[in-house]
Amino acid sequence: MRTSSRFDAVRGQTLDLAAPLSEEDCCVQSMTDASPVKWHMAHTTWFFETFILERFEPAFRPFHPAFRMLFNSYYNGVGDKYPRPQRGMLTRPALGEVLAYRRNVDERMAVLLDRRGGDPELDMLLEVGMHHEQQHQELMLTDVKHLLSLNPLWPAYSNAAFEPAPPAAPAGWRAFDGGVVEIGHAGGAFCFDNETPRHRQFLEPYALASRLVTNAEYLSFVEDGGYAKASLWLSEGWDWVRASELMQPLYWRRHEDGWREFTLHGLQQLDPHRPLEHISFFEADAYARWAGARLPTEAEWEHAASAPDSGLTQLFDTCWQWTLSSYAPYPGYRVAEGAIGEYNGKFMSNQYVLRGSSSATPAGHARVTYRNFFPAYARWQFAGIRLAKSAGG
Amino acid sequence: MRTSSRFDAVRGQTLDLAAPLSEEDCCVQSMTDASPVKWHMAHTTWFFETFILERFEPAFRPFHPAFRMLFNSYYNGVGDKYPRPQRGMLTRPALGEVLAYRRNVDERMAVLLDRRGGDPELDMLLEVGMHHEQQHQELMLTDVKHLLSLNPLWPAYSNAAFEPAPPAAPAGWRAFDGGVVEIGHAGGAFCFDNETPRHRQFLEPYALASRLVTNAEYLSFVEDGGYAKASLWLSEGWDWVRASELMQPLYWRRHEDGWREFTLHGLQQLDPHRPLEHISFFEADAYARWAGARLPTEAEWEHAASAPDSGLTQLFDTCWQWTLSSYAPYPGYRVAEGAIGEYNGKFMSNQYVLRGSSSATPAGHARVTYRNFFPAYARWQFAGIRLAKSAGG
Amino acid sequence: MRTSSRFDAVRGQTLDLAAPLSEEDCCVQSMTDASPVKWHMAHTTWFFETFILERFEPAFRPFHPAFRMLFNSYYNGVGDKYPRPQRGMLTRPALGEVLAYRRNVDERMAVLLDRRGGDPELDMLLEVGMHHEQQHQELMLTDVKHLLSLNPLWPAYSNAAFEPAPPAAPAGWRAFDGGVVEIGHAGGAFCFDNETPRHRQFLEPYALASRLVTNAEYLSFVEDGGYAKASLWLSEGWDWVRASELMQPLYWRRHEDGWREFTLHGLQQLDPHRPLEHISFFEADAYARWAGARLPTEAEWEHAASAPDSGLTQLFDTCWQWTLSSYAPYPGYRVAEGAIGEYNGKFMSNQYVLRGSSSATPAGHARVTYRNFFPAYARWQFAGIRLAKSAGG
Amino acid sequence: MRTSSRFDAVRGQTLDLAAPLSEEDCCVQSMTDASPVKWHMAHTTWFFETFILERFEPAFRPFHPAFRMLFNSYYNGVGDKYPRPQRGMLTRPALGEVLAYRRNVDERMAVLLDRRGGDPELDMLLEVGMHHEQQHQELMLTDVKHLLSLNPLWPAYSNAAFEPAPPAAPAGWRAFDGGVVEIGHAGGAFCFDNETPRHRQFLEPYALASRLVTNAEYLSFVEDGGYAKASLWLSEGWDWVRASELMQPLYWRRHEDGWREFTLHGLQQLDPHRPLEHISFFEADAYARWAGARLPTEAEWEHAASAPDSGLTQLFDTCWQWTLSSYAPYPGYRVAEGAIGEYNGKFMSNQYVLRGSSSATPAGHARVTYRNFFPAYARWQFAGIRLAKSAGG
Repeated sequence: MRTSSRFDAVRGQTLDLAAPLSEEDCCVQSMTDASPVKWHMAHTTWFFETFILERFEPAFRPFHPAFRMLFNSYYNGVGDKYPRPQRGMLTRPALGEVLAYRRNVDERMAVLLDRRGGDPELDMLLEVGMHHEQQHQELMLTDVKHLLSLNPLWPAYSNAAFEPAPPAAPAGWRAFDGGVVEIGHAGGAFCFDNETPRHRQFLEPYALASRLVTNAEYLSFVEDGGYAKASLWLSEGWDWVRASELMQPLYWRRHEDGWREFTLHGLQQLDPHRPLEHISFFEADAYARWAGARLPTEAEWEHAASAPDSGLTQLFDTCWQWTLSSYAPYPGYRVAEGAIGEYNGKFMSNQYVLRGSSSATPAGHARVTYRNFFPAYARWQFAGIRLAKSAGG
Repeated sequence: MRTSSRFDAVRGQTLDLAAPLSEEDCCVQSMTDASPVKWHMAHTTWFFETFILERFEPAFRPFHPAFRMLFNSYYNGVGDKYPRPQRGMLTRPALGEVLAYRRNVDERMAVLLDRRGGDPELDMLLEVGMHHEQQHQELMLTDVKHLLSLNPLWPAYSNAAFEPAPPAAPAGWRAFDGGVVEIGHAGGAFCFDNETPRHRQFLEPYALASRLVTNAEYLSFVEDGGYAKASLWLSEGWDWVRASELMQPLYWRRHEDGWREFTLHGLQQLDPHRPLEHISFFEADAYARWAGARLPTEAEWEHAASAPDSGLTQLFDTCWQWTLSSYAPYPGYRVAEGAIGEYNGKFMSNQYVLRGSSSATPAGHARVTYRNFFPAYARWQFAGIRLAKSAGG
Repeated sequence: MRTSSRFDAVRGQTLDLAAPLSEEDCCVQSMTDASPVKWHMAHTTWFFETFILERFEPAFRPFHPAFRMLFNSYYNGVGDKYPRPQRGMLTRPALGEVLAYRRNVDERMAVLLDRRGGDPELDMLLEVGMHHEQQHQELMLTDVKHLLSLNPLWPAYSNAAFEPAPPAAPAGWRAFDGGVVEIGHAGGAFCFDNETPRHRQFLEPYALASRLVTNAEYLSFVEDGGYAKASLWLSEGWDWVRASELMQPLYWRRHEDGWREFTLHGLQQLDPHRPLEHISFFEADAYARWAGARLPTEAEWEHAASAPDSGLTQLFDTCWQWTLSSYAPYPGYRVAEGAIGEYNGKFMSNQYVLRGSSSATPAGHARVTYRNFFPAYARWQFAGIRLAKSAGG
Repeated sequence: MRTSSRFDAVRGQTLDLAAPLSEEDCCVQSMTDASPVKWHMAHTTWFFETFILERFEPAFRPFHPAFRMLFNSYYNGVGDKYPRPQRGMLTRPALGEVLAYRRNVDERMAVLLDRRGGDPELDMLLEVGMHHEQQHQELMLTDVKHLLSLNPLWPAYSNAAFEPAPPAAPAGWRAFDGGVVEIGHAGGAFCFDNETPRHRQFLEPYALASRLVTNAEYLSFVEDGGYAKASLWLSEGWDWVRASELMQPLYWRRHEDGWREFTLHGLQQLDPHRPLEHISFFEADAYARWAGARLPTEAEWEHAASAPDSGLTQLFDTCWQWTLSSYAPYPGYRVAEGAIGEYNGKFMSNQYVLRGSSSATPAGHARVTYRNFFPAYARWQFAGIRLAKSAGG
């Protein structure tokens, strides 16, 4: 019952997010890293149909035989996949057909949950499916923001007013003793497999900044020539910044009368008080070096964020926070059997962990053990910077 | 009056062609060489607004100030251009707004033609604009066919029945004496500048095939291993065919039970009697060598096609016919002044001339002096093969 | 006898050209379009071994069984080829071994010519082989110049003094009537197959510049912003110039105190009186447009150059002259049987014809019907500009 | 004194390694990741000239003013660099000139060490310089092996006999308790900055394989279709393996009569008993998964290798051993001031740590805390696999 209501709520939230968008907005893919909104809507539905209905529904018949391949993202265990860079080519099925697909699967899910609710395996897959859909809800906003940013008309996703942020609090350092600490999910409630097992790590004493880096602070770095000083950058980052001719965060635009930022509310004056967003790991790392600090490791972040009275603000619901930690399996990590085991483990190379959550993350989705991950050059995510330093450093 | 009716007819034809398509179909760009249908609809409107209304309309004000840049194709003389590879990113303006743009320009054109019709310069630009729109009408079909071909659902543009062709007539050779001949447009009626001036060329005696190469004939080449024999290919074509792993025409698909072809009517059994379409210059050249023949030069084609009782069929309205002629200026060719001069001349390098017209060419658009041109590797045009040989060859 | 002496002279000339170079200079490949000097020395030897000794020598045994593949340039009819972009990887065989290969083949050729000299087929292949080696002699200089130009030490190929050129004569126009003219090789003496058959063309009246464009003249184009004006360029050339950020000819370098040019004599002050060299077809075409002229067609060039008292200077031994003509088969052109037929015909796409000859062309190699050819972007050849215009143009 | 002798010995070792190579072998660069042997010889000399002589030598004058730029590898703090992908273009200075450069710097270093030996800063830089040269000694073998492997003549670097390995000992597991352990260099003797500071880590109980994976064992993986099973690979590795069409280790060649391996002794029968070499991190990781194990972390490796009676063989002098650890700064890591600080820290992204040492590592160079690092796709290093597993795993 409660589960069924949550299912309905999650599924409805996806529709709400797409409501301001036209069929055209929902169809186009802006780059290989991004996917069309329509594809997100179909793929999240495919997840329930393939991993739950196909297994638990008596006399299962697919909504459309081609959808199994068309909306498979990366599950080799499920079979063939439509090539990721061509997701934007799928003008058919039309948005309306995808909405019908959603309704059909929702109805079949309702029947199934009515009959089989409480089955532990079904419940586990249902939980994964809902959290999976929430991940794609954030990606819908991320990806459509990137798409709209390529349009010189600077279209707004939302017509709501873009409120100026209140002045940022002064930044301070919050110290933590370290020692042998425990991180990772302890079980009980839902988590993704990459958060497990809970295990021990040894941490030297360290400190974290009490809040995130603001636009105004990062602007000082930009205006100090931060993008032109090799000594601030990792070698790979430096080569990338020069080859890409980068000089500011992804959505900043320099105008004659000052800086602006493309937002989900269209092009706006750059707000000095807001937390900086849409920078890569390389930029985060260079900024930290410029500021005489470093990025935190994910264990430092989690240990600090878990402490009552940590004195840390903006841990969640602001923006994702790059860590120094390469995305790797925890000691004793085990991949699940079957295609669902492809969810996390196979991506554990050449990516960096981000912690916290962003303004685009659905309510209730993130937690203190949550591990987000992206390649070091990724800029289109809602990602920012929290500084760290070693004790005595 | 008559001009005004023709203008309405041409403009209406564009809308008719788009009628079977959804907003999504009209928005997506399938590759850099192609453009979205919506972009074609806006760009052809831009042409009238920029080259005619901006010049002749009293108190001209643009429909939308950003459209001048957004829908400029390649006219450096007009100013900045939105990057060609990103035309598919323009989910805004929506299709509905582009249709409103068309209506607005059409209304203003109607007022202008009413007042100023008969002005020779305006009439000339109007003629160019209408022929320009007809060129884009063919490209709309060409480009949307390519887009739909990337969709594993094989969507049909048209639901009309796909009729089998009657058996092809036997192919024969039609001989022409050559000598000093004249080619190029003689003036009077409309033509593009690249068709001028009419001038003399010397032709040795030659023969042309009475009809185009059929699917069945080309299938013999495919099944004879034509795509795997280096000796049949130009060196550049051979490298390209191997790197691209090509083994058949663009839209042919080998199924267990025989060959199929993707068409505007969806995926169909390959019709042996239809003229072969959608091959590159390199494939046309290799096929000709395999067949013991060669491609015609454009002068041979035009001279033959101009002869009463030439005995040649399928010259027009079937498919474009690759020639051996590199696209180059005729002796004495002059580029027009201003941005309109960018229409043809600047593309005269590394492209090949095609003659005739295709099933997608609007009625009344082509003529015997017409010069179409595409790069040697282009396959998505409605292009086929007419064989030629030298006398005694 | 006479043939045998010529053979010795041609073979010896290759060694003379390599004499100033070290083993290292001879081994390295500077780009895919170029080949190492050592490779040229081995490939020209391979040509005699493969096309003559293998066929005519009793009890033929290859000098080294792997060389047949290793030094095959592009003859699919001969079999496998070592990949062109990796020719510079062949540090073995060492230069000394390649010289031994040359001596071995020369000795076997001497025996063969002694026995079989006068055999028409052998004589024909011998002629091809000698002209082939002369082509590679020019390429040795072309390619080693490019290699040395990449070295910031600006090494000189030759230590001889770099003499300033005398002031260029004033440029004038020489007019030609045109009409039905004959071009192409008439037979008798040696020529390459691409120069045949001699045939008729119709030419409208035209004029050619009496001499080539000088460095000083081209510098005016550079300083007038020629590389930044889209209206001067073919569309494809403009895209290429901008993407490559080109602003001057290949070997020009702008210093604080004026322009310099990298030459086979090292880095030198730019000589205003010398003919311009090392520009692409696109640059030649843009310069001509800037100068209110155009490039000649190859038929115009050959017809004019064939006229006694043409009034044209610098036709030969100065630099190759880009023409407006795409490289295509002459009417009635026939490819030779067998692998030797791959010499010319298969390259007849997307290249432009150059006429004349350069300071690097071996004496006795070129002639008025000679057709050199390179892609439109090629700059590392000794290629310059002769202007043309149409009568009344 | 002793230092001076060690300096001479290290410098002499470089010459010994180059002795079997020709000028051509020393000049060519086989790929961007590799450098020419001549460049290694000049760059290691440049290191002493730039970081020691330039600072400590009275009246310093460079051997050649251009060498400062020409042989700078990646030190932005030193100034301009010649582009890495073009190192193979430097046919000048000739090998003989580079040898003269070496002799000149060696003589000046001898004078300096005689006068200033014992200066702590000079001694520190001298140590770095000698270890730096030893690193390049290994790279000389690594890079020249890659170069020779591209030559279908399969040239041997060494003419010494290629002895078959004795049968490999049975592989067993050696267990370690873990807990809070210390890793990193404790100071005293020389180490690189990336090995510091010594610090604590917490390890769960684990086991390591007693020896490295053999060719025979990896061949089982190959023959079991390991390269074709997506489920064994990291997602990024799978995409790379398929795009690169990889099916075996870098230097393995499948012949009709069995497998061969290209070695420094030329092409040899694949020796089943030798440790596997020349595989990437991705291949190492996939093999471990196939074998039901995983790779060790660098802390696990170092802790185990530091234990007396660890029971582990082939820790050193066999081949480098991929670890699961991304290359990252140790807690409290500090970069040195000045250009020398660019030695290690700036490469700490998207690379994996390798531990141990290889048959190509100079004697006395490696140690238990040594951190080698390469990108996950690198195959041309002498790198192999030691398996690990978690206790109870």
